[in-house]
Amino acid sequence: MDRRDFTLRMLAAAGGLALAPQGLWGAAPQGFGGVRAPSGLADLRIDGPRLNRSLEALAPSGGDWGGPNRRVAYSDADLVGRELLREWMEGVGLSTRIDAAGNLLGTLPGSVPGLPPLMMGSHIDSVPDGGHFDGPLGVLAAVEVVRRLREEGLTLRHPLEVANFANEEGGKTGSRAMSGEVTGLEWDIPTASGHTIGEGTIRLGGDPDRAAEVRRETGSLAAYVELHIEQGAVLERLGIPVGVVEGIVGIRRWNVEVEGVPNHAGTTPMNARQDALVGAARFVDAVYRSVGGMPGSAVATVGRIEAFPGAPNVVPGRVRLSLEVRDLALETIDGIRLEVGALAEEIGAETGTRFAFQPFYLSRPAPCAPLVQDGVAAAATTLGLPSLRMPSGAGHDAQSIAAFAPVGMIFVPSVQGISHSPEEFTAPGDVENGGNVLLHTLLGLDAGL
Amino acid sequence: MDRRDFTLRMLAAAGGLALAPQGLWGAAPQGFGGVRAPSGLADLRIDGPRLNRSLEALAPSGGDWGGPNRRVAYSDADLVGRELLREWMEGVGLSTRIDAAGNLLGTLPGSVPGLPPLMMGSHIDSVPDGGHFDGPLGVLAAVEVVRRLREEGLTLRHPLEVANFANEEGGKTGSRAMSGEVTGLEWDIPTASGHTIGEGTIRLGGDPDRAAEVRRETGSLAAYVELHIEQGAVLERLGIPVGVVEGIVGIRRWNVEVEGVPNHAGTTPMNARQDALVGAARFVDAVYRSVGGMPGSAVATVGRIEAFPGAPNVVPGRVRLSLEVRDLALETIDGIRLEVGALAEEIGAETGTRFAFQPFYLSRPAPCAPLVQDGVAAAATTLGLPSLRMPSGAGHDAQSIAAFAPVGMIFVPSVQGISHSPEEFTAPGDVENGGNVLLHTLLGLDAGL
Repeated sequence: MDRRDFTLRMLAAAGGLALAPQGLWGAAPQGFGGVRAPSGLADLRIDGPRLNRSLEALAPSGGDWGGPNRRVAYSDADLVGRELLREWMEGVGLSTRIDAAGNLLGTLPGSVPGLPPLMMGSHIDSVPDGGHFDGPLGVLAAVEVVRRLREEGLTLRHPLEVANFANEEGGKTGSRAMSGEVTGLEWDIPTASGHTIGEGTIRLGGDPDRAAEVRRETGSLAAYVELHIEQGAVLERLGIPVGVVEGIVGIRRWNVEVEGVPNHAGTTPMNARQDALVGAARFVDAVYRSVGGMPGSAVATVGRIEAFPGAPNVVPGRVRLSLEVRDLALETIDGIRLEVGALAEEIGAETGTRFAFQPFYLSRPAPCAPLVQDGVAAAATTLGLPSLRMPSGAGHDAQSIAAFAPVGMIFVPSVQGISHSPEEFTAPGDVENGGNVLLHTLLGLDAGL
Repeated sequence: MDRRDFTLRMLAAAGGLALAPQGLWGAAPQGFGGVRAPSGLADLRIDGPRLNRSLEALAPSGGDWGGPNRRVAYSDADLVGRELLREWMEGVGLSTRIDAAGNLLGTLPGSVPGLPPLMMGSHIDSVPDGGHFDGPLGVLAAVEVVRRLREEGLTLRHPLEVANFANEEGGKTGSRAMSGEVTGLEWDIPTASGHTIGEGTIRLGGDPDRAAEVRRETGSLAAYVELHIEQGAVLERLGIPVGVVEGIVGIRRWNVEVEGVPNHAGTTPMNARQDALVGAARFVDAVYRSVGGMPGSAVATVGRIEAFPGAPNVVPGRVRLSLEVRDLALETIDGIRLEVGALAEEIGAETGTRFAFQPFYLSRPAPCAPLVQDGVAAAATTLGLPSLRMPSGAGHDAQSIAAFAPVGMIFVPSVQGISHSPEEFTAPGDVENGGNVLLHTLLGLDAGL
């Protein structure tokens, strides 16, 4: 037991955790290695209750099941959770390692030499005071899928890789290292854990100086599939159990400055005002009506607003607000920018104000590969589950992996669409459906690629 | 020379000020005391250039003429400016004293025994980085009026009182002490000078423990007249040189909370949102359109707004904003509150949000006495100056005095309506007009009351 293991065991003991809950996973099955006939696989199912129990079993490392999850990346809780996960991966026969970016990876050989791996994964780190589904579901379902394959004595044609990506919530550090997007400057960024990303990576067993070696080449993965909760309420409202993700939307953000004339709120008649907040208010409403009335699934949000000087008795001379637009196509986002820019011109002319847009953020869309989408849809059909093609409005590790491999995502319903909150919840039946869709997507890809 | 005088002289010397600029006021004229025939008074005029020079002569105590005025109440600059003023008051024959609230008062006897005084006044303290007209104009014009009367050997029937009220900008402490509105708690309030109101009052030569003695009874003043810059752009835009103030508007302020549902900006379709900022934006616009479209001169302002949680990627779940309404009649203000409350209900129903109004400020309207308004209007007519009846949207010392005496105010144009700023400016001709209207209003009131 080296010093790091000792520390982890002490942390686990302090939290009352058993590092290897034998009752959950049992001993690794013996005698696997042959390939079952694929004709019988349509009836194969994961063990749903066991997958749900594994979510509960991981929870205490971050906080009480049903209460806030504080397993923020690089924290002691993250270390404890990852150690639990590592033991579970080993328990189902995966060979584990930690790469230089801190990703925890488990691999299993395939039966056909030379084929690139099929990867499944997500992340177990959480936002501060988050929930217990966003991330863990994708990782634990991947472990459960491997477990069921091995219980059935199935070896796939492709090697399998299960990834728990480092620091998804704080910047997708682990998955972005694989796509070569992490720059040297990032290591010094502080995180909610109190450690910088660089310090945290070392805590996980990584090595920032060697993180460039983590980069993967195009063609190095056969495909990547991620199961995740929807984090919206679309599936729940429509009563559809499976979302076939078409891609992760692109995001553009602007700071919008509205310039009017500051004035005494008592001495300036209403018709003599050039009130920057009146201009801004009309803009917020116009954006909402305009984008809300468009076909497709683009969304636009004004989440932050400030009026200057900001006193109850001064007509605002200046307003600063944020504008965010998301869509699967950058062209749509740029079209919306033109549309709301034209609306801002009109509003400026009406209200005696001027609008200026300063871009400050861009995240490019990451389309899911049609082949993987079709694989997910086919898996749902095999299982008799209705499915819906939909964009992912939130970012995910799959977005990084899409830079070098065909990716796909499976969504399951989130109750009331609540996420990044202790209230986050996905019903056990939906968790089980998600695991089964992941299993059959993997089987289909293994057979078809 | 006591210690306070010594300090003042040192401060004045440090600022390069002459405490008694003899060139400005000269020696007090001799041999006044008789009453001139009123028939000849229609042609009497103040010395306009001298009044304008006095504004420039006071400026250095607070900052360069044309630059920011930092003569905040209770500051060293305020002490220096008041000492200059005191010497000028004495120079024109006023007997000066400082009352327990720190007001600097100059008095001159009248010719008819037993008549209550006519008071003129305003304040020489400034907001931080203010202008050189807001306040000083009313005080220095009063001194100029007395000067001209004495130069002409005129004694009015009523005693005269010239008031420089303490700390107008920081809460009208001096004038509110006269109306008995200052409570004990106020003395501990910190001010921009770095001193509390109580400490500052002592610095001016007052005594907070005896401030209750400053209170004046109804009937103790014949009338009060205050000349002030408009601080709006109404007179300038209409090209009218004189405003006859109908009263100082009442003010009500509310904190308005808009409650929606916070949501992920990427995963929540536009039609599934209950965006508190969209509700708030429609409210801001509705208030502006509704009050802007009303007859009369009521104004409503949203000056402060904040969205929570306030991130570009979160649909705001809550917005807090300020609503201020001003009008000469409280009933009108209350009617507007009902009107915008009904609009808020409609907007809430449309947007899935709820509005709550919490009142946090009330300042009652202070109507100007019709008799004093008529006196101001008659003075303008005598001078051949067009005038306009208008409310004062800003608060003034006259507002406090109205609690126990008939008050009136004279407005002169402010260039572009700019005030509380170094850009504040009133043209020399308008300053001179204002002084002449003050003179003739006083003559009319003296004859008529």
